[in-house]
Amino acid sequence: MRETIRNIAVLGSTGSIGRQTLDIIAEYPTLFRAWLLVARSSADLLIAQARLMRPHMVIIADEQYYDYVRDALEGTGIEVATGSAAIAQAVTAPEIDTVVTAMVGYSGLESTIAAIGAGKRIALANKETLVAGGTVVMEMARKMGVPILPVDSEHSAIFQCLLAANGNPLKRIHLTASGGPFRTWKKEDMAKATAKEALRHPQWDMGAKITIDSATMMNKGFEMIEARWLFDTAPEDIRIVVHPQSIIHSMVEFEDGAVIAQMGHPDMREPIQFALGYPARLSLDNRKLDFAELGQLTFEAPDFDRFPCLGLAFDAISRGGNIPCAMNAANEAAVYAYLKDKVRFYDIPDIISKFMEETAFIASPTLEDILATNDEVFSKAKDFIG
Amino acid sequence: MRETIRNIAVLGSTGSIGRQTLDIIAEYPTLFRAWLLVARSSADLLIAQARLMRPHMVIIADEQYYDYVRDALEGTGIEVATGSAAIAQAVTAPEIDTVVTAMVGYSGLESTIAAIGAGKRIALANKETLVAGGTVVMEMARKMGVPILPVDSEHSAIFQCLLAANGNPLKRIHLTASGGPFRTWKKEDMAKATAKEALRHPQWDMGAKITIDSATMMNKGFEMIEARWLFDTAPEDIRIVVHPQSIIHSMVEFEDGAVIAQMGHPDMREPIQFALGYPARLSLDNRKLDFAELGQLTFEAPDFDRFPCLGLAFDAISRGGNIPCAMNAANEAAVYAYLKDKVRFYDIPDIISKFMEETAFIASPTLEDILATNDEVFSKAKDFIG
Repeated sequence: MRETIRNIAVLGSTGSIGRQTLDIIAEYPTLFRAWLLVARSSADLLIAQARLMRPHMVIIADEQYYDYVRDALEGTGIEVATGSAAIAQAVTAPEIDTVVTAMVGYSGLESTIAAIGAGKRIALANKETLVAGGTVVMEMARKMGVPILPVDSEHSAIFQCLLAANGNPLKRIHLTASGGPFRTWKKEDMAKATAKEALRHPQWDMGAKITIDSATMMNKGFEMIEARWLFDTAPEDIRIVVHPQSIIHSMVEFEDGAVIAQMGHPDMREPIQFALGYPARLSLDNRKLDFAELGQLTFEAPDFDRFPCLGLAFDAISRGGNIPCAMNAANEAAVYAYLKDKVRFYDIPDIISKFMEETAFIASPTLEDILATNDEVFSKAKDFIG
Repeated sequence: MRETIRNIAVLGSTGSIGRQTLDIIAEYPTLFRAWLLVARSSADLLIAQARLMRPHMVIIADEQYYDYVRDALEGTGIEVATGSAAIAQAVTAPEIDTVVTAMVGYSGLESTIAAIGAGKRIALANKETLVAGGTVVMEMARKMGVPILPVDSEHSAIFQCLLAANGNPLKRIHLTASGGPFRTWKKEDMAKATAKEALRHPQWDMGAKITIDSATMMNKGFEMIEARWLFDTAPEDIRIVVHPQSIIHSMVEFEDGAVIAQMGHPDMREPIQFALGYPARLSLDNRKLDFAELGQLTFEAPDFDRFPCLGLAFDAISRGGNIPCAMNAANEAAVYAYLKDKVRFYDIPDIISKFMEETAFIASPTLEDILATNDEVFSKAKDFIG
């Protein structure tokens, strides 16, 4: 299919998306090679992945595990490094073709920017990159002529549907949402819900941070903001539709009313292989759709009252500048606190709202402004939570 | 959008598709002009359309109405002709850009072939053209480099979905079916059903012949055969799925399991404008989809026992040659008899089956063979019905 193997850097290789990315790479050894694996602190899994995939290099971001990983991989010939500066440098290696940015939270922004600066194809799985740094990142990607291939199932769906545009303008995006673990819950029960309850997500196998974002639907707010940047679409032209079966991964609408949808059983390997192999689709051994067996697909309007994070996201993107970055940083602090049972469910939107109000507005933030806003809001929110 | 106006020939302008085609043309006078209108026998409507649209020429196929139409249009400057030879000649006029083939039944084949021979873009609404003459017509279209733009909502949907293929091979087509007026009926009730009952079709505003084909689901069998030719797909890779809401107009599936669907409220103006304007989509004043309002989309497996015409269609295309043509001719005779209450519902598949068996098999029919098979089977079936 292709003459040369694509060397892949997987940032966040020990997380849910990272592991599935390695599955795809392992399944297609003639197409892909894992060249660089990066993990934050899951040293043992990183070591096991390195022994299996034989990358050129691994980086353990948290320096306290460096010696442990280096010793474990001694004699394998695999280079071992540590620290975020090492990540930002490693992704620029000329051998690398595609950088999969699957780190959790805000840490993805800097290395993604480094990879774009080096002209790498980006397989984007880190939501915060565009939520916090949308203007800067997209401007840079355009300048460098770098394709940003979304790995998120919703954005991959929109990307796939837009292949059918054939020169016609996009009118509207229908962004589907599973509704998360609290879709059918009463507001008073949600107010008392624990992180443990929220972590029972009905459709997708995801990490803890993202699952809480799904419970608050901030996740969908993030995706709306990402879609705004990825597809250059006004927020008012992005309609969120709750679709509990998660079979339709999202849709686009054209001027003539035609809606093009992308569907499949929930399986992150589909958008991952699409991003890795683009423009080729790989023959995946996944579960295929049988519509008679499915029986039905259902749809509901999103509830902005029970899920105030949705409204906050629309508010943040309409205010623009560094406000979505502030929203993201406050959310990150609030969600980690919620995961440790330090705050309650509806404290999350309250904390976000408070810091969106208190952040000094910067209309056209530079990368430095975004980094500063993030650090400041995150640490202030942490202090505030205590 | 385009520099020159597209001159359109509308064959079957007084039928359901033809009338809606004229609506689109009238709505976009800077893009399209009705250059030729052809009707079989609806003289008064043809005259009214001619006065409104001011085409260069009208043809009334049935010669007994010629004087009437000619007299009515005297002094308008509109040319008037009659007879099928006149149609086959008129569609070759150099002024014509696109020929909309919306005649009912078998009569569409000859003029479609004449138009392809003259290198015209074809907006194909006549089902029998490909069902009876698939090999010959597609071969000729390929040779002439003529695009065949399907007007049928299902094939337009597949065509639109395949714009997203981006070089990747099609794996499977999911052809949706409303299920017709007898979807929920018991077989014994269907056996006694009158044409009047069948004509109450739940979703689409269609002509009588096509509505009976929908009641027997032969319609869907035709569409399967058309899809086989239009998209060069093996019949076993075309899966029929009953979807009563008719919101998903059809779907395609790729190697990676991704399914791309095209949706909209049932409205033939959508595929008509798509075929007329292709590659541009026009801004249509139609009802847009609101998924929360829709609530649900449902799917069922087709019932080959209650709808034996479905199995006959798969059988006909797998036998190939002139057998689909024989099937189509026998169906046309049987449906007209059913519309006149001369035969009962399940006589239709019985008659088709009988003539599929009795027809002398021609593996690689020429156009002449197809014309001969059609004439022979149609007249024999008519005699048999009596």
